[in-house]
Amino acid sequence: MTKPLRVGVAGLGTVGAALIAQVAAQRAQLTARCGRPIEIVAVCARSKVKNRGVDLKKMKWFSDPVELAGDPGIDLFVELMGGSGDPAKTAVEFALASGKSVVTANKALLAKHGVKLAQLAEKSAVSLNYEAAVGAAIPIVKTLREGLTGNSINRIYGILNGTCNYILTRMEQEKLSFAECLKQAQQLGYAEANPAFDIEGHDTAQKLSLLASLAFGTKVDQSAIYVEGISSIAAADLAAADELGYRVKLLGVAVKTPQGIEQRVHPTMVRKDSSIAQVMGVTNAVTVDAEGINPITLIGPGAGGAATASAVLSDIADVARGHMTPPFGRPTASLSSVRKAPMQRHEGGYYIRLMARDKPGTAASIATRLAEQEISLESIVQRHPKDGPSADTAKGSVPVILITYATSEDGVRKALAAVGRDKVISGRPQVIRIEKN
Amino acid sequence: MTKPLRVGVAGLGTVGAALIAQVAAQRAQLTARCGRPIEIVAVCARSKVKNRGVDLKKMKWFSDPVELAGDPGIDLFVELMGGSGDPAKTAVEFALASGKSVVTANKALLAKHGVKLAQLAEKSAVSLNYEAAVGAAIPIVKTLREGLTGNSINRIYGILNGTCNYILTRMEQEKLSFAECLKQAQQLGYAEANPAFDIEGHDTAQKLSLLASLAFGTKVDQSAIYVEGISSIAAADLAAADELGYRVKLLGVAVKTPQGIEQRVHPTMVRKDSSIAQVMGVTNAVTVDAEGINPITLIGPGAGGAATASAVLSDIADVARGHMTPPFGRPTASLSSVRKAPMQRHEGGYYIRLMARDKPGTAASIATRLAEQEISLESIVQRHPKDGPSADTAKGSVPVILITYATSEDGVRKALAAVGRDKVISGRPQVIRIEKN
Repeated sequence: MTKPLRVGVAGLGTVGAALIAQVAAQRAQLTARCGRPIEIVAVCARSKVKNRGVDLKKMKWFSDPVELAGDPGIDLFVELMGGSGDPAKTAVEFALASGKSVVTANKALLAKHGVKLAQLAEKSAVSLNYEAAVGAAIPIVKTLREGLTGNSINRIYGILNGTCNYILTRMEQEKLSFAECLKQAQQLGYAEANPAFDIEGHDTAQKLSLLASLAFGTKVDQSAIYVEGISSIAAADLAAADELGYRVKLLGVAVKTPQGIEQRVHPTMVRKDSSIAQVMGVTNAVTVDAEGINPITLIGPGAGGAATASAVLSDIADVARGHMTPPFGRPTASLSSVRKAPMQRHEGGYYIRLMARDKPGTAASIATRLAEQEISLESIVQRHPKDGPSADTAKGSVPVILITYATSEDGVRKALAAVGRDKVISGRPQVIRIEKN
Repeated sequence: MTKPLRVGVAGLGTVGAALIAQVAAQRAQLTARCGRPIEIVAVCARSKVKNRGVDLKKMKWFSDPVELAGDPGIDLFVELMGGSGDPAKTAVEFALASGKSVVTANKALLAKHGVKLAQLAEKSAVSLNYEAAVGAAIPIVKTLREGLTGNSINRIYGILNGTCNYILTRMEQEKLSFAECLKQAQQLGYAEANPAFDIEGHDTAQKLSLLASLAFGTKVDQSAIYVEGISSIAAADLAAADELGYRVKLLGVAVKTPQGIEQRVHPTMVRKDSSIAQVMGVTNAVTVDAEGINPITLIGPGAGGAATASAVLSDIADVARGHMTPPFGRPTASLSSVRKAPMQRHEGGYYIRLMARDKPGTAASIATRLAEQEISLESIVQRHPKDGPSADTAKGSVPVILITYATSEDGVRKALAAVGRDKVISGRPQVIRIEKN
């Protein structure tokens, strides 16, 4: 029998515990499929006494993850602690520098230090695998890193945050407010007590930065991403989207444009009959547009102990098989710097919801300001609220919904600034970009 | 620079030509990503003079694929001729026996001879890759063979034939008959002049046999599959499905049951809000239900030159990288024989459409026969055609649609046979199985 792959696991939260249970349950299958046994021989966590529902008796215990990372008794270091700082960073660096492969689910660490860590891995000729860092059980990293090796990718976009998708799904289906749905998500454990990281789009941005690098051969660069969250989305937007044949999703989008690579995270209108629009609740999905072929969409659980452990285990299995792929799919030295397409140059359709003052000249003023920026309208809907002014409706104002043909972000911003100066609307206009799909 | 991977391609139809174009277009990227160049050095096809729109000048020409397969000038043999017999079979066997890796898109060959070819590959310690054989550009083979290594899979099902899905989509959306849509599919080149292989489910069955082996570690066994095509589906069924919240898709389903592994291909009612129900036109999709995690669904182009070539190239890239995985994900000797669950023991919900004779006692008779088999009904809809009898409506008969709760195939067959003997219906009852998803 070939020598076992000896694995050390740092971090025994739900993912770590699920991983240990899965390796134990699938021992024989893993040995058959990888050609050698996979053995978790050492673990590290804060509390040694906590009951995690798994048998740790045969495993060496470490209280310091860096010490575990350097232990000569392991071949592979699995980092499940999270966070872009220490101890995760030092432990992963130390493991790679001492010639051990690393498997991690840590998107924050890779988004911030991905290039440096990839260089370290290459120098030691070891693997740095992170399937679980994006979309958990969805095999998107493998698909981009190995599967679509000979494709030229034009665009990649996805629903990468289950919390936001859960909230938007509830808002749409139950006609509830953002605040109510956030509260429910928190009660169900889908959202953190401090939800900003999820709902303001930063979690999606970290994941998008990894997908963009894999898709375009660029250096991971989270700072190149334009980020907008979902907290401004109102039930009225979802109702209007529904009527117009759209749904609103928080998407991470990376796309090749003549100006460079556009990377953006924002609430997005997607056509209701697209694959991505059907993705509901905490489920994640990624769509890849490669040159010359129809889109490929991968849908699945984007979080949870078992789903994340499933991806971690698939990464471990690749190391056991001796399959090594450069961390970002290409030699790190050949990764190019992101030529960032400025957001002002973004082109696409826009949904604009305004509270227009109900007085003569308002429509003409708005129309003129849009025309000045050469913005053409696909549709205009003016609603007179059925049951008197709703919470959304300021006194003496009526909601107007505009859908533009493809135009530039810059034009939309300038037109709306001018409309604001004209004092024909109340409150801030709501703007949601439309993604073609 | 590391030694190039020298590739010979047998078969220069749309896929072969697309492959040659893609390798030429992505030369630098492929070299960077695989760590060595990929060079198509030899080709084989029937006609040497035909213009295929690609440059073959630098490639050695073979008129005999078996000769190409044995040529010492190649490291990898790509088989794109198709068919389960010769020359494909002998050429692939010869390539494997002479120590060359093989990449093929040939589902028929693998469905029939997969186990034997896998043994040959193992004996020579070479790869046998076939991503393109199922779902073309959808990375389902890689996902099952490498990605879900540590998962226990309970069920895998999918839309694996674009022709059938195109026909069913058109029938539903345009309210057309099967015959009309088949004709359109033929005009568009989506269906063959002799469409039986596609519409009777045999193409789906070949693909399902490969997925089942990968998912369950069983020997490929197409003969274990129950197969029913879509030619009996009427516009009335799609309309009724729509009202009941379902769509009809031709699915290939392989599922673990207490009786063994059930493998079946048949028209299937799927819930309209499921990912698979949204898959329209020639697009393919596969859903994997693994133990403990929510389903993973992969959607994408299931046919076409560029999409198929994309998958072939991803297989070639794995060989170039030196990544080898057993053809069916496990050592061939460890593949078990399929313990076939008999179709009569299938359990699930059923849609039944009957033409009931419009006379006293009919409803009682049908209800009694179902009750005798302990079949409970979720819903009964009796339709009186609005505009007089339609083409579907025999004289003096009214369509009755029954949806059963989960029951056994055997019970449904016996009940309907008894209903038939009672002479209370005209024509054959239409039966469509409901798949939970």
